[in-house]
Amino acid sequence: MLKDFEKKKKEDKDALGAQIKELQAKLLSQQQLLRDAGLPVIVLIEGWAAAGKGSLIKELISEIDPRFYNVVSPVVIRESEERFPFLNQYYKAIPETGKVTFLDSGWMESAVQKFLRHEITKSEYNHRIRQVNEFERQLKNSGYLMLKVFLHIDKDEQFGRLRALAEAPETEWRVTRDDLWQHKEYKRFRSAYDEFMVKTNEAERWNILDGSRKKTAVRDTLRLLTKMIDHAVEAGKFTGEPYEEKFPLKKMPLLSEVDLSPAIDEDEYRKELKKLQTRLSELHNIIYRKKIPVILCYEGWDAAGKGGNIRRVTYSLDPRGFDVRPTASPLPHEKNRHFLWRFWTRLPKTGHICIFDRTWYGRVMVERLEGFCSENDWKRAYNEINEFERMLTDWGAVVLKFWIHIDQNTQLARFTDRQNTPEKQWKITDEDWRNREKWPQYEVAVNEMLQNTCTKNAPWYIIESNDKKYARIKTLKIIVKALEKACDEHFKRIME
Amino acid sequence: MLKDFEKKKKEDKDALGAQIKELQAKLLSQQQLLRDAGLPVIVLIEGWAAAGKGSLIKELISEIDPRFYNVVSPVVIRESEERFPFLNQYYKAIPETGKVTFLDSGWMESAVQKFLRHEITKSEYNHRIRQVNEFERQLKNSGYLMLKVFLHIDKDEQFGRLRALAEAPETEWRVTRDDLWQHKEYKRFRSAYDEFMVKTNEAERWNILDGSRKKTAVRDTLRLLTKMIDHAVEAGKFTGEPYEEKFPLKKMPLLSEVDLSPAIDEDEYRKELKKLQTRLSELHNIIYRKKIPVILCYEGWDAAGKGGNIRRVTYSLDPRGFDVRPTASPLPHEKNRHFLWRFWTRLPKTGHICIFDRTWYGRVMVERLEGFCSENDWKRAYNEINEFERMLTDWGAVVLKFWIHIDQNTQLARFTDRQNTPEKQWKITDEDWRNREKWPQYEVAVNEMLQNTCTKNAPWYIIESNDKKYARIKTLKIIVKALEKACDEHFKRIME
Repeated sequence: MLKDFEKKKKEDKDALGAQIKELQAKLLSQQQLLRDAGLPVIVLIEGWAAAGKGSLIKELISEIDPRFYNVVSPVVIRESEERFPFLNQYYKAIPETGKVTFLDSGWMESAVQKFLRHEITKSEYNHRIRQVNEFERQLKNSGYLMLKVFLHIDKDEQFGRLRALAEAPETEWRVTRDDLWQHKEYKRFRSAYDEFMVKTNEAERWNILDGSRKKTAVRDTLRLLTKMIDHAVEAGKFTGEPYEEKFPLKKMPLLSEVDLSPAIDEDEYRKELKKLQTRLSELHNIIYRKKIPVILCYEGWDAAGKGGNIRRVTYSLDPRGFDVRPTASPLPHEKNRHFLWRFWTRLPKTGHICIFDRTWYGRVMVERLEGFCSENDWKRAYNEINEFERMLTDWGAVVLKFWIHIDQNTQLARFTDRQNTPEKQWKITDEDWRNREKWPQYEVAVNEMLQNTCTKNAPWYIIESNDKKYARIKTLKIIVKALEKACDEHFKRIME
Repeated sequence: MLKDFEKKKKEDKDALGAQIKELQAKLLSQQQLLRDAGLPVIVLIEGWAAAGKGSLIKELISEIDPRFYNVVSPVVIRESEERFPFLNQYYKAIPETGKVTFLDSGWMESAVQKFLRHEITKSEYNHRIRQVNEFERQLKNSGYLMLKVFLHIDKDEQFGRLRALAEAPETEWRVTRDDLWQHKEYKRFRSAYDEFMVKTNEAERWNILDGSRKKTAVRDTLRLLTKMIDHAVEAGKFTGEPYEEKFPLKKMPLLSEVDLSPAIDEDEYRKELKKLQTRLSELHNIIYRKKIPVILCYEGWDAAGKGGNIRRVTYSLDPRGFDVRPTASPLPHEKNRHFLWRFWTRLPKTGHICIFDRTWYGRVMVERLEGFCSENDWKRAYNEINEFERMLTDWGAVVLKFWIHIDQNTQLARFTDRQNTPEKQWKITDEDWRNREKWPQYEVAVNEMLQNTCTKNAPWYIIESNDKKYARIKTLKIIVKALEKACDEHFKRIME
């Protein structure tokens, strides 16, 4: 009898090994399908310390060509991590189309650990959960495949594994204080992991696998992964769902309703400019010390005076504490990722000011009008942008958005002047003239954008710029007022 | 009399102001010239604490369009800084063609501070000086313009300025412990700065300006900068000087002399593979703990078996501790910088293994043969690469370079097999066939490359890969041996 039992066991083991080999070969053959279909894949492996996340990933990648994947492990540079939004490092890690990113623990671990360590409050924790759901939904809607696995082991199993590691001299260093703490607090962690999974089971579902049966976990992950890929390749790229959430919005006027006559005389301009720049300079010092990040967004008609306006702002700032980020057409590796990726990866550190000269709103203007994205894409983008900006303000950022506004005649006069002035000619291109012909279509798009994305936390301001000096003063006043408010409320906010 | 004196003083001051305005306008007009000429510019402002570096930069940028420049301040994330080579953050900051990077203190401060604080030894300090000279010369030779300014103030002046800052509540926080320490150690710093400037006055000369006369320093910097740009625009892009230094090189055989018959039988392969992978896995643990960075470079003929070879190496490694970096054609923003930039920015952290699947040697192979760079460029590249790799090994890295070698018949057989096997077809492109036709030219280039860049610190290994299994075992043996040596000698090395 025992012999039969042992024989059966051996057969099962061999069968499992053969299944794994087969699935690894299948994954290898899917590389090309992913590439052809332009599908990016994220595989998130979470789970207990010593549950075997690393060796699971090792098996998953063992046959794939290194050009197709990337393994990302948690970053432990506390200082740099804490000066950016929570999801920053994960957003940075998302793959291009046709490639796979394996995450050896990720946003779940980062949220749960911080919370259990009381480094973030319950309300911050809830923000993180919401942000995770938004993050996953946005990725899904833009065609990302995501597999979420939680490797589960019980307390006794973990004890045995940690002990084996800790007692062997060559692996002793692998057992961290965090691991030991997790083990001692097993029960608390268990319910926190459970709660996190219940609350983030929306866009993508969790798969709980038994970490104590290593080979079975490998096979099951490979099955889930290859099935997901087969399914997606067959279904074609997911084109996104319509958005659901309604953000409370501020009412904006139509561009045609804006009175563009306001102007300012030279003397008052000089006086005001000096006063505002001095004040802004003082405020820059304070926000630097209070570590408040500031994000200023400039959009507007060609030749509306964005550049000169930005320069009047930066003139007051310490060059060590700000950056101007011009936004050009996306590069290939940017185009092959979620449209917000190239902005996520350019956020300022806390305490710094970042000025975007054109922004993510390109999605609902030029990309919409030139057909660089689908209708679904740009319609969904209003909500995606509102979520992105709420994430920024939840993080503590001041976000201000300026539409630098002129009328068509003023634009024509400035274009002509640029054309006729040798040292300004570089500023004017054929594309500017072509865009000018599309003024009416742009006006429709801009009006829709202003209506759909003027949130309380990240408001739009229309800046009348037929008189550039008036525009500069108005912009500076808005910035100064917003920074004063942010400095005043800083302590209250962090104490919430 | 006094009235005349005061009048003269006022006139001088006005004249200075007018000169600055004029030079700022000139700089503004040079933006376009820089863009058209494809010239990148680096402005390095070094000097004493409180000498006015920040406000000097503010004046320099005040009129330029933010799309043309970038200000970089010293990074203070000690942890991340110390896990990369000294020049890493500065190399990362170099601008694209047509743009300007202003550095608010840079490699001088980083080298001198570390040395005076005894955080690096005299010999490491000397390495840094050599690396700085190499860095500046390499940039110059690839067309970069560089202006180096040292803002000098005497001890009394610094005392007054630090005191003014420290005693005003709103600026008190700006005075750091480092600043106070520098002031107390003024004399030591003075001679260290002096020595550093004397020793790094090679590729680009230092300009010492009087920081106590702020406006004059602004004018003089603007003058130097605009003059440098004018001169460079007139002269056209600098095409580089021939290299001077002779590295001690190991003698390499010609490819045609290599016997490609070695093979291994299946049984021995399995046995050896297992043994070597187990050992490599152990060594990976040790190098991780000892924080030794490892850089493995793969080059070779198309279809020589690089991918499979790399996979046999990575199979033994913990996915958290290695990265495979495939090298494709450079993207536009990479092409617009020094050719090593895209590798500099992808170096592994200490303790990590980085495998480059194709490397910077593209410069002397495909870029040479396809005419993507000038003859001057690729001829100079041998030396530039040797310097780059010496910098890596001075930093403590193990650098191994593999030429995966096959003969023409074997390549043809593998190409044909790929063509005829559906799941391998993605691996073969028209370009591969075109490259095959250029075999003889490539062979000349590869032979030259091997002769010119097989240094003792970063040696080449020719891996006979007509039998792929033999090739994998040979590569693994070389890696294991090199890592064992590095682990053995680690303590001795850091104690040097």
